[in-house]
Amino acid sequence: MEKGPLDVVGIGNAIVDVISHAEEKDLDDLKLAKGAMTLIDVTRAEFLYESMTPVTEVSGGSAANTMVGFAQLGGTAGYIGKVRNDQLGKVFRYDISAANVEFPTSPTVTGPPTARCLIFVTPDAQRTMETYLGASVGLGPGDINRGLVQRAKLTYLEGYLWDESAAKEAFVLASKIAHGAGNKVALTLSDSFCVERHRKSFRDLVEAHIDILFANETEILSLYQAKSFDQALQQIRGCCEVAALTRSEKGSVIITGGEVHLINAEPTDHVMDTTGAGDLFAAGFLFGLSRGYKLAVCGRIGSICSAEIIGHFGARPEASLNQLIAEKMGPDVLD
Amino acid sequence: MEKGPLDVVGIGNAIVDVISHAEEKDLDDLKLAKGAMTLIDVTRAEFLYESMTPVTEVSGGSAANTMVGFAQLGGTAGYIGKVRNDQLGKVFRYDISAANVEFPTSPTVTGPPTARCLIFVTPDAQRTMETYLGASVGLGPGDINRGLVQRAKLTYLEGYLWDESAAKEAFVLASKIAHGAGNKVALTLSDSFCVERHRKSFRDLVEAHIDILFANETEILSLYQAKSFDQALQQIRGCCEVAALTRSEKGSVIITGGEVHLINAEPTDHVMDTTGAGDLFAAGFLFGLSRGYKLAVCGRIGSICSAEIIGHFGARPEASLNQLIAEKMGPDVLD
Repeated sequence: MEKGPLDVVGIGNAIVDVISHAEEKDLDDLKLAKGAMTLIDVTRAEFLYESMTPVTEVSGGSAANTMVGFAQLGGTAGYIGKVRNDQLGKVFRYDISAANVEFPTSPTVTGPPTARCLIFVTPDAQRTMETYLGASVGLGPGDINRGLVQRAKLTYLEGYLWDESAAKEAFVLASKIAHGAGNKVALTLSDSFCVERHRKSFRDLVEAHIDILFANETEILSLYQAKSFDQALQQIRGCCEVAALTRSEKGSVIITGGEVHLINAEPTDHVMDTTGAGDLFAAGFLFGLSRGYKLAVCGRIGSICSAEIIGHFGARPEASLNQLIAEKMGPDVLD
Repeated sequence: MEKGPLDVVGIGNAIVDVISHAEEKDLDDLKLAKGAMTLIDVTRAEFLYESMTPVTEVSGGSAANTMVGFAQLGGTAGYIGKVRNDQLGKVFRYDISAANVEFPTSPTVTGPPTARCLIFVTPDAQRTMETYLGASVGLGPGDINRGLVQRAKLTYLEGYLWDESAAKEAFVLASKIAHGAGNKVALTLSDSFCVERHRKSFRDLVEAHIDILFANETEILSLYQAKSFDQALQQIRGCCEVAALTRSEKGSVIITGGEVHLINAEPTDHVMDTTGAGDLFAAGFLFGLSRGYKLAVCGRIGSICSAEIIGHFGARPEASLNQLIAEKMGPDVLD
C-alpha cells in the first residue's frame, strides 16, 4: 500500500525517558550527582534501572520530542532512530507510535541495549539525570529509510548524533535523498559542547545541506566562535535559508534572506524545568512552516509550545498545544 | 571668524534641572505627588522654586543631555533651544557651554520664564519631578540658526517639541537646511504619549525627513499601533536609513536597509534611576556613527553610555565615558 506524504521526519537519538521519584538518601546510596546530567555506561545503566521504581517510561530524545509535539499539533510526522529489540525498545516504539509518529526503523538484535535517560526526581522537584546512549548512537546510513525521507516535506536532524561517524554519513545521505526529492532539510545544533567538538564539520554541513537551522544562543556562539550574539547573527545570515535562534527569556530571532524577526518569549507564571524547551519550540515553528504561515507567526507558535513545556516537569506537553495556540492567537491560526 | 564643522546639533526643550533634597514632610506640605512627573504652570513653578534649596542646577532636557554626552565623548556638538533672559536661562547657557556644547540661540526677553524641572529627592532616593515648560516650547523657525545647522553633519531633533506648531515648522525647516547642505537628520520619538497625540504627523515626518530614528519599545509600538515589537520592526524597516530601537534590559536593535543588529544591554550592578538612559544611548550611538564605526559598534557604545547613566541619579555621566568604553571595548575604539 502506498503511503501518503508526511510533513516532517525526524532523525535522532532514540532514548527512553525513565522517570522515578527518589529520596535524597537514594541519591546518596546510588552515588548520583544531584541536579546533573551524567553519561553512564551499560553496567551502571542496568544497575540503576534495576534499583528504580519507574513511574513513567516515555519515548524521549530531542528530535523524538519534536516529532511528538508536531504530531500533537495536528501535523504528520515520522521518526528514524535506533533501539534494540529489548523491553525499553518496545516501550519506545509503543509510545512514539501511540503519539501518531510513524516509526519504521528496525531494532538491532545484537549489540548494546536501548538508550535510556534515567531521571530521579527528588521531593524538592530537582531532576538528576543519568543517560546511557546504548543502541541509539549505532544509527548509520543503512537505517535511513529512503521512502520515508522522500515522503516527508522536511527532514529534521538532531545535532547530538554528529558525534558518530556512521551517523554523520546517515545525515548526509538523508539530506541528499531529501533534496533529491525536492524536500527541505533542517538541523538543530542540540548542544554547544557537541558543536565545539565538531565545529568545522558542523559549519560544512550547514553550508552544504541545511535549509533551516535551529540553535540556542550558546550553540550559535560556539558555531562561529562569536564574541556576541550579534556577531553570530551576521555570520549565519545567508548561510542557510532560515535560522531560528532561541534565547530563553529574551525570546527568539528568526533570520531569512532579507528579513529578521524578533519574537518575544511567551510570558510564563513559573519556570519548572527547561528540558525540552528547544525541542518544542522547533515543533511549533516547523508546524507553522508546514502550514505556510509567515515566519513571525511560526516563531510565536514555537514560543507558545516552548512556554507550555517549561511550566512543568518533562518534555511532553501536558496541555493541549492546539488549544493554547488558539487561545493566544485566535482560532483561525490553526486550521 | 568662520567656524569649523560640527559633528552634531541638537534641537530640543531647553530645561534647567533643579535638584534639591526634601523630606517626606516637605512633599506633603507642598502637595507633591511622590515619584511622579507632573507638568505645572508658571505660578506653581515660581512658588515651588522659591521653596527649594537647590543643590544643583544643570542644563537638562533630552536633546541637551545627548549633546552634553556627545561632547564628553570627544565629539563636537551644538544646541538650539529656547530660554528666557532670566537667572535660570543664564544657568542653562553657562552649564551647556561649560560642557563644550555651542549654544547660540538668543534668549527671549518677554514671555514665560526659562523652563525648569524641579526635582525633589527624598531620603529613600525617590525623585518627584515637577516640570514647567515655560520659554522652551516657544521655539520657532526663527530660532533655527542656518549656519549652525549647515555646519553640523547631523541634526538631532527631540520629539517632545512636536506638541507645538511653531516647533514643528522649525523641525521641518532645520531638516531642509540640513539636507540641503548634504547633512543627515535624526529624530528621537521621546515619549509614547506624545507619539499617540501626533501619530500621523510623526509618521509623515519620519518618511519625509528622517535618516536616523531613535525610539524605545513603547514609542515604536505607538508609532505603528503595532501589536508586537516584531510588527513594528517590519514597519520601520525601509522608512528611514537607520533605526535604533532601545528595549531596556533586552538591549537594542539597530535596523538599516539589509542589516539588523541585536545589541545586548550592558550588564549593570544596579539600576538607580533610568532618567537619561535613552538620551545617553543616543549620544554614544551618534558618536560611534560620527567616527564611522560599524553599526554594531555604535550600538555597543550607546549601551555602555546608557548603563553608566542608570547606575546613579541624574542624566549626566558621573564616570568618564571614554574611559568606560576603552575599558570595555579596548583602547583603539575611541581615537
